[in-house]
Amino acid sequence: MKEIYCGVDIGGTKINVGLVTKDGEVLIDEKFETKSELGQDYSINNIKNSIDKLLKEKDFKIEELKGIGIGSPGPLDSKEGIIIEACNLKPWKNVRIVDELREKYKNIPIKLQNDANVATLGEYLYGCGKECDNFVYITVSTGVGGGAVVDHKLQVGSNSNAFEVGHTIINLNGRKCNCGNNGCLEAYASGTAIARIANERAKEEETKMSKDGHLIAKDVFDYAKKKDKLALDIVKNQGFYLGIGLFNIIALYNPDIIAIGGGVSNSLDMFYDEVKTTLDKMSLDASKKVCKIVKAKRKDCGLIGAAALSFYLD
Amino acid sequence: MKEIYCGVDIGGTKINVGLVTKDGEVLIDEKFETKSELGQDYSINNIKNSIDKLLKEKDFKIEELKGIGIGSPGPLDSKEGIIIEACNLKPWKNVRIVDELREKYKNIPIKLQNDANVATLGEYLYGCGKECDNFVYITVSTGVGGGAVVDHKLQVGSNSNAFEVGHTIINLNGRKCNCGNNGCLEAYASGTAIARIANERAKEEETKMSKDGHLIAKDVFDYAKKKDKLALDIVKNQGFYLGIGLFNIIALYNPDIIAIGGGVSNSLDMFYDEVKTTLDKMSLDASKKVCKIVKAKRKDCGLIGAAALSFYLD
Repeated sequence: MKEIYCGVDIGGTKINVGLVTKDGEVLIDEKFETKSELGQDYSINNIKNSIDKLLKEKDFKIEELKGIGIGSPGPLDSKEGIIIEACNLKPWKNVRIVDELREKYKNIPIKLQNDANVATLGEYLYGCGKECDNFVYITVSTGVGGGAVVDHKLQVGSNSNAFEVGHTIINLNGRKCNCGNNGCLEAYASGTAIARIANERAKEEETKMSKDGHLIAKDVFDYAKKKDKLALDIVKNQGFYLGIGLFNIIALYNPDIIAIGGGVSNSLDMFYDEVKTTLDKMSLDASKKVCKIVKAKRKDCGLIGAAALSFYLD
Repeated sequence: MKEIYCGVDIGGTKINVGLVTKDGEVLIDEKFETKSELGQDYSINNIKNSIDKLLKEKDFKIEELKGIGIGSPGPLDSKEGIIIEACNLKPWKNVRIVDELREKYKNIPIKLQNDANVATLGEYLYGCGKECDNFVYITVSTGVGGGAVVDHKLQVGSNSNAFEVGHTIINLNGRKCNCGNNGCLEAYASGTAIARIANERAKEEETKMSKDGHLIAKDVFDYAKKKDKLALDIVKNQGFYLGIGLFNIIALYNPDIIAIGGGVSNSLDMFYDEVKTTLDKMSLDASKKVCKIVKAKRKDCGLIGAAALSFYLD
């Protein structure tokens, strides 16, 4: 009899469900729209139907399914298996998703964890974190998030809210963040921040970029490739700000590897040198010299990490 | 036969050696001057002699000594048991302290770890961290240091340099720190920083404090008690800066308890409210609501933590 694990990666736009082996091989998966506005029952039914459909398509028996792991935006209560709420899963409130799935899939482990922590686990077990003791995954896209593996174990914190790296303060009187604080890393180094800074500066400085306030991060990277001076400067600053954020993580976690994932990491080559230059100028040589900064390998780390959650954490 | 553990807490000024039970009771201890300038052999001999003397005074047999743990400033190589160097243990270089002690005390565990990590372990096991899952200890004195217990386990990092919280950047273009970086927490919230800020501001602002550049942190707290306006403002700012530092730790570690120790924590009552006010204004409610911020309980956490090191870490 085979042993397979189901990963459920819940995002604001799409839900990805897949059947995964213990070695991190995705045997089959599908994506469908979340449509959280239609209510939690709608999405939970879709998840159940998807699991059944995938099992059937691959001719797996229900007994071969050994666990289900769910990654979701939070805050959530992982011990009780509840998604408390999430700004991109409105209007969900206190969704007891683990209990709901357990009604149908009895007697197997079903686990819920923060999506960024789950992705970290996926990249750690099956991507570039393999076999290291202390690992950090940072995703730079709309926001900045991530997770840490401390001495081989995923750090989840007291109520599954560990590693909110995007909201660590790097500039105490600095730019306003969506969270309400000033000077969060996310207010400087996220895709949203790149776009916001570009739109502000394009109004004041010489550039070929649009001045009408509709620039997105990708535009900035595209114009930087065309040697637009302002775009190049913003991309360079991205390396500097991310470098400061990584310095703080190196100072605290003293990791072997930091893997950078998320949409903005597709352009990591364009600001990697500035990240390194920023770090090179700073202190804590002993920690810096053991820490490699690399691009994350597994685009599907959210899905495979979710599947792994069911057998990884006790 | 009894089981006792020896703690060795090495500081720049003094070395504290003590015999401790597994319950964290200090049976006997003594302090002597480090005098690192006389060389490493001088200090290592003093440590050996002290252990022998304490065992003799309490009538313990050598067989009853079940482990030795050493806390030292770093950087160090805890796996190999080497103090690489430390700015307040000059001119020591690559001191193989574990091997040196093992020549005399054979067949028992002898462990070396960063002093702040060791103190964290002491406060976690025997102070206010008892029975919590995720614990942080922050010491505010000359510098700002500390350690973290993540899911019941002391975080040490890849080469024992984890949790250099004092050098995390909270203000990227801010005050110069002794480490060379700008905007470290230590440049704002340490005893040294309080004194430096007071000396700078006393020259410019109305105050009863000395204007000759010789103020120390204690003077500021003393004058604040006498309602000196400048001193009160600096003490309030201390709460704000420490609050920002604690926010970052709450964001990353999502701990149950943060314990504040070190010399400046003797005056914690004077800026605790400002720490709380600062945190109250900030985001991440889910993490903040589970985190208690308290004064550390064990002044001897460096010694008892060192003793515990020998049986705690594998």
